[in-house]
Amino acid sequence: MAGNTFGHTFRLTSFGESHGIAIGGVIDGCPSNVEINFKKIQHELNRRKPGQSAITTQRDEADEVEFLSGIFEGKTLGTPIAFLIKNNDQKSEDYDVLKNVFRPSHADYTYQEKYGIRDHRGGGRSSARETVARVVAGAIARQILAKFKIDIKAFVTQVGTVRMQNPFEFFTTEQIEANAVRCPEKDTADKMISRIEEVRAAGDSIGGEIHCIVSGVPAGLGEPVFDKLHADLAKAMLGINAVKGFEIGSGFAGVKMLGSEQNDELLPDGKTRTNNSGGIQGGISNGQPILFNVAFKPVASILQKQQTIDVHNNPVMLDVKGRHDPCVVPRAVPIVEAMAALVILDHLLRQKASRL
Amino acid sequence: MAGNTFGHTFRLTSFGESHGIAIGGVIDGCPSNVEINFKKIQHELNRRKPGQSAITTQRDEADEVEFLSGIFEGKTLGTPIAFLIKNNDQKSEDYDVLKNVFRPSHADYTYQEKYGIRDHRGGGRSSARETVARVVAGAIARQILAKFKIDIKAFVTQVGTVRMQNPFEFFTTEQIEANAVRCPEKDTADKMISRIEEVRAAGDSIGGEIHCIVSGVPAGLGEPVFDKLHADLAKAMLGINAVKGFEIGSGFAGVKMLGSEQNDELLPDGKTRTNNSGGIQGGISNGQPILFNVAFKPVASILQKQQTIDVHNNPVMLDVKGRHDPCVVPRAVPIVEAMAALVILDHLLRQKASRL
Amino acid sequence: MAGNTFGHTFRLTSFGESHGIAIGGVIDGCPSNVEINFKKIQHELNRRKPGQSAITTQRDEADEVEFLSGIFEGKTLGTPIAFLIKNNDQKSEDYDVLKNVFRPSHADYTYQEKYGIRDHRGGGRSSARETVARVVAGAIARQILAKFKIDIKAFVTQVGTVRMQNPFEFFTTEQIEANAVRCPEKDTADKMISRIEEVRAAGDSIGGEIHCIVSGVPAGLGEPVFDKLHADLAKAMLGINAVKGFEIGSGFAGVKMLGSEQNDELLPDGKTRTNNSGGIQGGISNGQPILFNVAFKPVASILQKQQTIDVHNNPVMLDVKGRHDPCVVPRAVPIVEAMAALVILDHLLRQKASRL
Amino acid sequence: MAGNTFGHTFRLTSFGESHGIAIGGVIDGCPSNVEINFKKIQHELNRRKPGQSAITTQRDEADEVEFLSGIFEGKTLGTPIAFLIKNNDQKSEDYDVLKNVFRPSHADYTYQEKYGIRDHRGGGRSSARETVARVVAGAIARQILAKFKIDIKAFVTQVGTVRMQNPFEFFTTEQIEANAVRCPEKDTADKMISRIEEVRAAGDSIGGEIHCIVSGVPAGLGEPVFDKLHADLAKAMLGINAVKGFEIGSGFAGVKMLGSEQNDELLPDGKTRTNNSGGIQGGISNGQPILFNVAFKPVASILQKQQTIDVHNNPVMLDVKGRHDPCVVPRAVPIVEAMAALVILDHLLRQKASRL
Repeated sequence: MAGNTFGHTFRLTSFGESHGIAIGGVIDGCPSNVEINFKKIQHELNRRKPGQSAITTQRDEADEVEFLSGIFEGKTLGTPIAFLIKNNDQKSEDYDVLKNVFRPSHADYTYQEKYGIRDHRGGGRSSARETVARVVAGAIARQILAKFKIDIKAFVTQVGTVRMQNPFEFFTTEQIEANAVRCPEKDTADKMISRIEEVRAAGDSIGGEIHCIVSGVPAGLGEPVFDKLHADLAKAMLGINAVKGFEIGSGFAGVKMLGSEQNDELLPDGKTRTNNSGGIQGGISNGQPILFNVAFKPVASILQKQQTIDVHNNPVMLDVKGRHDPCVVPRAVPIVEAMAALVILDHLLRQKASRL
Repeated sequence: MAGNTFGHTFRLTSFGESHGIAIGGVIDGCPSNVEINFKKIQHELNRRKPGQSAITTQRDEADEVEFLSGIFEGKTLGTPIAFLIKNNDQKSEDYDVLKNVFRPSHADYTYQEKYGIRDHRGGGRSSARETVARVVAGAIARQILAKFKIDIKAFVTQVGTVRMQNPFEFFTTEQIEANAVRCPEKDTADKMISRIEEVRAAGDSIGGEIHCIVSGVPAGLGEPVFDKLHADLAKAMLGINAVKGFEIGSGFAGVKMLGSEQNDELLPDGKTRTNNSGGIQGGISNGQPILFNVAFKPVASILQKQQTIDVHNNPVMLDVKGRHDPCVVPRAVPIVEAMAALVILDHLLRQKASRL
Repeated sequence: MAGNTFGHTFRLTSFGESHGIAIGGVIDGCPSNVEINFKKIQHELNRRKPGQSAITTQRDEADEVEFLSGIFEGKTLGTPIAFLIKNNDQKSEDYDVLKNVFRPSHADYTYQEKYGIRDHRGGGRSSARETVARVVAGAIARQILAKFKIDIKAFVTQVGTVRMQNPFEFFTTEQIEANAVRCPEKDTADKMISRIEEVRAAGDSIGGEIHCIVSGVPAGLGEPVFDKLHADLAKAMLGINAVKGFEIGSGFAGVKMLGSEQNDELLPDGKTRTNNSGGIQGGISNGQPILFNVAFKPVASILQKQQTIDVHNNPVMLDVKGRHDPCVVPRAVPIVEAMAALVILDHLLRQKASRL
Repeated sequence: MAGNTFGHTFRLTSFGESHGIAIGGVIDGCPSNVEINFKKIQHELNRRKPGQSAITTQRDEADEVEFLSGIFEGKTLGTPIAFLIKNNDQKSEDYDVLKNVFRPSHADYTYQEKYGIRDHRGGGRSSARETVARVVAGAIARQILAKFKIDIKAFVTQVGTVRMQNPFEFFTTEQIEANAVRCPEKDTADKMISRIEEVRAAGDSIGGEIHCIVSGVPAGLGEPVFDKLHADLAKAMLGINAVKGFEIGSGFAGVKMLGSEQNDELLPDGKTRTNNSGGIQGGISNGQPILFNVAFKPVASILQKQQTIDVHNNPVMLDVKGRHDPCVVPRAVPIVEAMAALVILDHLLRQKASRL
């Protein structure tokens, strides 16, 4: 069974290669009779769009979404919502040199091994361009979640060794979106941007971390023992290109803690004094904000010479040009939010069936 | 849709409450005609069993598995393999005091909110006792993986602040199993055991970390874009009780790296010079060892007084007795291995369908 | 992917071989907090039980169900409900002669070809004894459906060429259960019983037909375009041993009709004047009774000599003894009802997610 | 969970409304490296196309398929294959009169009840126009099946009361395609065509029956106990618009048979003397041809006045014009074949995982 469908009840099936005709998706299981705000969808696409700032790739894509089905007179029909985003700025000839070469830490080698064939242009299916479909679906999911007062906000907490001082404060969307790197601490953001510019100038790339807060989730979402809410969030996040780690609540810091420190005392109003659990206990939301971190490695595309092999296993010195993000996290913020929205809405709808 | 089935092609459906009649499972999709070594299954159960050493809980369970179907004259039939492990040492009366109280950072509150009912005895379905079913299924999966020369080894790298010095060495099973804490560095193991004993004496609990290595996996396993191999591993691990974090390859350390450091140079034999990718690129195995870390928080059950609330939202001072693990990681090693085995075998079987 | 799980939201995973230790199942997705009437479950098992009358097989099974999980103090927990029915009267030695022979029109040959191994005792997994698990799950589903005033009634309309005169009347449970063949027309029932006795005396078997009425289903159940309500009913029925045909509403008779005859005129109360649609239009229930027929072939086990082959493809004259039903339909009535209950409840729960 | 995905391993997700922008689909799980013959796909579409003969609807659609992804240089990539067929000849204004009226035996009422909203133009999602997506996916499946020498042929055996004399003979594609009604007996075909023309002249519609033969299927396909091969075929067929019945092998005629007549004697070459089983025993193919019948009711769209109700439950006399098929079976032949191809290929790929 192939793996291009995400979710059980609100399901996104994604399709498309980076330099094919289009990227797109089909959402099945979207509740009917929901009014869709198309501007909000385009707004999320713009947040993910290449070329949005000086620190992102300069590939020029309008990234305008076309809907093919499932929406009638502005409202969802309950039938599949198909959509596509055309690929316009496909400089496929840039990639001819890569037809027979496996780039280090890219998926070139593994796709070839798995399928015995691959579309080498721009990484084909393995390109992060595919995430544009997730952002569309996530933008629809967020509109539905908003009806339940569920809000999702992510921001960049770290780029390389530049880290926010107070990552666990509350921040407004305006603070987060105030700068190109989507870090709500102005001084830290400036340092991050400088660091990214340095890295770009060196033809290199650099890693980063995103923190995400989902607020307003009612207690009761999550399906133990395997489809725990944070297990599905982990899967969603690790499914994003370049992600290497996920932690919820106290996360890896919890390794060093004592139970007496970690435990979240319950208060008479049903809230907890601390939130080391990150809003989920036993795989089920407890009504507190859901808090998680996502670790991104530096993207594999760099403009430095690298030793590698070709499809005949001959050593090759790789020296590519191209348009790449030196640091993926600023553009990954809306992707993290979109995947979180898909998970939360899917579980919100799943929960409807667990009680009569 | 409830969430008690794991996997797509090799599927485990788990059932049972901690103090019910039995814990068990049904495996559907086990390939036919495989000879089963029952001793190896029991061996894995013994590694997970309570009371196996001075640093684990003293609940006394034989944990003997009975098979009800799917195996005929020692071989798998290709039909569902049902099995159960009876619950014998159920001191349910110990839990009467908890009937109306929500323990901090347990799943008591969230189960009640989700289902409107719960079996309060020993945590019911939320108890880590459920993982006994995973260990049985994993032990069968491992026997099949062994035919493909795929091996899975996990060990404890950290307890509280006590950390291994060289966690990324190669270790033998004998080294790992040489001590009660399953850490292959003898000196570190001794320090971990002392720390756990201290914590137990204080009526407290402590977190820990497990490292897992899957070797022998052929290139080509994993189903992008959503069912990436590491995404499914992440989901599997976060689905284990008390797990709060997962990282593959360079993981959270990759946040600080440059692409020129992170990228794994391809060598003419198809291997890579480094393994920052952790054996997976673009969601597909590349033939290198798969390396990941799992973070466990301290378990919520502690023997200290804690402030909490009852089902009527009244504040309560909780002062429980009981038999609990002060640190879960030694017994979690076979559980991590079992879940890894389920993921790898499922993807091995899924991969069969992706080429003619 | 193997096929031992039925349903999407209310899911039954079935297990067990005819002469293994037990037949059983796990229900995942049963809504929580539902009080279970165990007597009603046993009542349905008794309706399916061998030896219940002079015209069924004389295999002697108590068919008492044991529940292992998912029910606490008489109520469902929302966690998996595992149950088993032990196999007691296993005269496995009766089947030694069949170890290397493929019986005509049984699944002996096909299981061997598929799996390369089979449990030859009593048909192993292919035995209709497996349906005992479906009856248990169906009996739970029916108790939930009853809360929504949904009722399911099946009865025998035909045995061989003996057919009811007015199969589309309304009948009470008492009328249906008044005789061993479960046909509510007394005279026809007598003729059917005589015919079955004749067939049994000749060491032969005979086919039959069951009609099923599901009343009280609200409009709106069914998930086009593939999981249409009647498509799932068809799959459920064809999945029962010995079933060769399914028709809904006008069914095969509709082939001969004109649209002006077939169309069900809508009345101002939302009902229809006729019910040629059988309660489903466009794959979605319309609030009228759901009406369908199920065709059963004569069971393959007969006590006459038959020409066949052994596992080495040598011709063999088969002359078996054993205890078999000469006509399966009287005992199949509760099985048809159980499978219908699983489909309807699954769709009732699925429908909850299709609107906010 | 909505129901617009068909299959487990070779999966089609269908989308689109009759008068929306496009109908289309996404195939996930198509094996990689398969060369696609686009002409053969278009050929199947042409067989289903409206306006192909004097006895079909005159809606004028080019029905040209555009592929958006998953195919590179003429070969499948193993990634999702997305495709669409634009809706060109949408005379939506024809349907304005239907905006508030429920047509008898259409899905107007049930879609409204289910979703609380519907696209009334041309039946929206409930239109048989959706099956164009199935034909595309089926045409790809057939190309893969052809590599295994599996062939699928369907033809019309009955229209109204006009029935073939020898429906169980062998017929060539040329014989089947020799006339507009796709019945391989020339005389019968002529009578069917005359009958359809009469019915059309009367503004009425008429039912029909299709017989399908799948030859070359190896023994071993099918996944008991629920995903039996014929159970999945039944579901596939009942999911086609206007289908009311399905029978395999002896089908409803088996009701009247004795076991001694029905049983298929096994011959030393592993074949059977008769094929009352229809090529499937115990839910698994036995290597003999798979034979089944599909019953179609007369389509609901007729040009006669009909009494019905509007959305306010007021009685309305309906008098519609429009372009409709008086008998759907000639165009349904390629749809039956396509759905059969999806089922057989899905099970062929599923079977790969059941043995090591």
